[in-house]
Amino acid sequence: MNIYADNAATTKMSEAAIRAMTDCMYNYFGNPSSLYRTGQIAKEKLEEYREEIAKIIGAEPREIIFTSGGSESDNQALLSAAMIGKKKGKMHIISSAFEHHAILHTLKKLEKNGFEVTLLPVHENGIIRVEELNEAIRDDTCLVTIMTANNEIGTIQPIGEIGSLCREKGIIFHTDAVQAVGHIPIDVKAQNIDMLSASAHKFHGAKGVGFLYCRRGIVLSNLIEGGAQERGKRAGTENLPGIASMAASLKQAVENMESDNAHKTIIRDHLIKGLSEIPHSALNGDAQKRLSGNVNFSFEGIEGESLLILLDQKGISASSGSACTSGALDPSHVLLSIGRIHDVAHGSLRLSIGEDITIEEADYIIENVKEVVAYLRSFSPVWRDLVTGKKEFILK
Amino acid sequence: MNIYADNAATTKMSEAAIRAMTDCMYNYFGNPSSLYRTGQIAKEKLEEYREEIAKIIGAEPREIIFTSGGSESDNQALLSAAMIGKKKGKMHIISSAFEHHAILHTLKKLEKNGFEVTLLPVHENGIIRVEELNEAIRDDTCLVTIMTANNEIGTIQPIGEIGSLCREKGIIFHTDAVQAVGHIPIDVKAQNIDMLSASAHKFHGAKGVGFLYCRRGIVLSNLIEGGAQERGKRAGTENLPGIASMAASLKQAVENMESDNAHKTIIRDHLIKGLSEIPHSALNGDAQKRLSGNVNFSFEGIEGESLLILLDQKGISASSGSACTSGALDPSHVLLSIGRIHDVAHGSLRLSIGEDITIEEADYIIENVKEVVAYLRSFSPVWRDLVTGKKEFILK
Repeated sequence: MNIYADNAATTKMSEAAIRAMTDCMYNYFGNPSSLYRTGQIAKEKLEEYREEIAKIIGAEPREIIFTSGGSESDNQALLSAAMIGKKKGKMHIISSAFEHHAILHTLKKLEKNGFEVTLLPVHENGIIRVEELNEAIRDDTCLVTIMTANNEIGTIQPIGEIGSLCREKGIIFHTDAVQAVGHIPIDVKAQNIDMLSASAHKFHGAKGVGFLYCRRGIVLSNLIEGGAQERGKRAGTENLPGIASMAASLKQAVENMESDNAHKTIIRDHLIKGLSEIPHSALNGDAQKRLSGNVNFSFEGIEGESLLILLDQKGISASSGSACTSGALDPSHVLLSIGRIHDVAHGSLRLSIGEDITIEEADYIIENVKEVVAYLRSFSPVWRDLVTGKKEFILK
Repeated sequence: MNIYADNAATTKMSEAAIRAMTDCMYNYFGNPSSLYRTGQIAKEKLEEYREEIAKIIGAEPREIIFTSGGSESDNQALLSAAMIGKKKGKMHIISSAFEHHAILHTLKKLEKNGFEVTLLPVHENGIIRVEELNEAIRDDTCLVTIMTANNEIGTIQPIGEIGSLCREKGIIFHTDAVQAVGHIPIDVKAQNIDMLSASAHKFHGAKGVGFLYCRRGIVLSNLIEGGAQERGKRAGTENLPGIASMAASLKQAVENMESDNAHKTIIRDHLIKGLSEIPHSALNGDAQKRLSGNVNFSFEGIEGESLLILLDQKGISASSGSACTSGALDPSHVLLSIGRIHDVAHGSLRLSIGEDITIEEADYIIENVKEVVAYLRSFSPVWRDLVTGKKEFILK
């Protein structure tokens, strides 16, 4: 059996996305900035895709700028909001402890440039508390950036409430929605979102393309300077084939969202139930307020890396944390943020399931994770210490 | 007849590039940062492409980082070199007057941050003089950035000589080679190039992907912060399909370079000869030291935009300057830099021919440009003033 259960890292492109992309590569290869028909047709296509994408998240077309992906969108959003804040003498930013590194590292850069950053705790359930956000807001707060859904544990944040609070206080609210767009409903107007980052390859679109929604009236600073593309806010010849794939895959994702989520929720809960039977294990993050595709467990006394390698041998592709950091030996900052100590954070497993997963595949996963965890524990010195009482169990 | 003669704006993807890309989308969709086989196979592919590309320009694989295109590469190169300079108290940069806006606008940003910029003249032939570069170099010069070939008039700069001089003086030398890579031979070691920007869609690869060569030992600053991809220097999930297309198209371009250039040179010179017959016209830039695909003419007494629209009606796709600025009404800064006055710069035409152009197509272009120029002049008030002697001719 071959089961790809790492859709939070990247997804396989849908047929619709590949078709839209190749159609563009063959038939609409012109530069949208060119005056002749081949260029103007490309320009029309570009604006058509912009409209489709804008409509899906409740934005106006002119509020969407196309980028090379989620990281670029995050970087540009934060630097832009910071620039606006600085001009008003407001240099305080609020975020959360478990944001993606595209956010956290950009915040570090801003700190070096004189900004002050408050990272809200996300508690055991992996969800920030709006009252704590409210308390953290200061007169000089220029930006609140909280992700819509976490990339490792899938917990969904109270975006609408955060949006209302920020709007009321006149603070720009950005959300890294890379894991959420195409997976849960987003309405930037209803949720009072000022800026939002998204990436196509997280919803079966192409890699190397994403977008940044930026509410009309908020002035973007350029991350990439050059030509006057994207209303002068993002230079570089537009990646029309990539954008076509993004529009096609997003449309499809939204059309199937309800049924996909219903199906994935059943499988997810089945996986959670099955894996919970493993002694001294724990689900990471809230059991309900999480993406339908996300299951994240910690197993005491084992190493996540060995777990992944053995599961891979059984045909199961999964991860321990975000792909971006899986090369690193540091434990996941996300798991640490919800209170897992280093040892436990190391022995974790993220399964991010796709729409086409079956209950038989879920059973196969459960069976194999159980087997592999037991196997790894059988020669783990840490596990021996736990069983013999030399160390105390933390989980259950 | 339909002739696409705007290959400097963008090229149609080659079959090899599309095949490489779709192969990746179907078969190597994993995230290269993932531990399991699907990810590791993607990682192997990524490094294979990096090696192929590095070899073509004489670089080591680790000296190549993949970006979203030429503009991003230019931005990152300049900001990185500036950062290195700043740490040493060297804040003077030398460039040329007719660089791409990705360079010029980034230099403006650096000027706002305290850097001093000298723009070398490019003279009537569109080529900088190395002795003038030598004179402009100061003790506090940290960076020289000169494009390999100009995007509007195709003139090729003495890159090897510039490289030697900079290496001798210990100054970082960056070149925007977006128009050159895949079109003329590049050897970063032999030419003493420290940093080089390239973009796949200029040589029949995908849009939205490019690379930055950065010599070992030169520390890049991140433009896009986040995950640890590209040795921590460029965050964001790698666009493997795009990179695959770039490797495939670059390999093809280099394999056919000699014969393609021989063919294009014949057609180019045929076009130049034919268009020179138009009275009061002039070729822009050196007739020999230019890309084999570039023809750029100014015609007195007409508007470039009308010329393009009428040529488009005849099935000829051409441009007046760079696509990035063709929406703007300002005359091309490139043409102004070689001494064309506003009026003349406005009436210009860039033909950037592809490898598959035929002599019959070239004749069709000549015939139609002659016809359209005559037609436009027949009711141009400027032309009437010139003919009646109210205004003096500038060209010929």
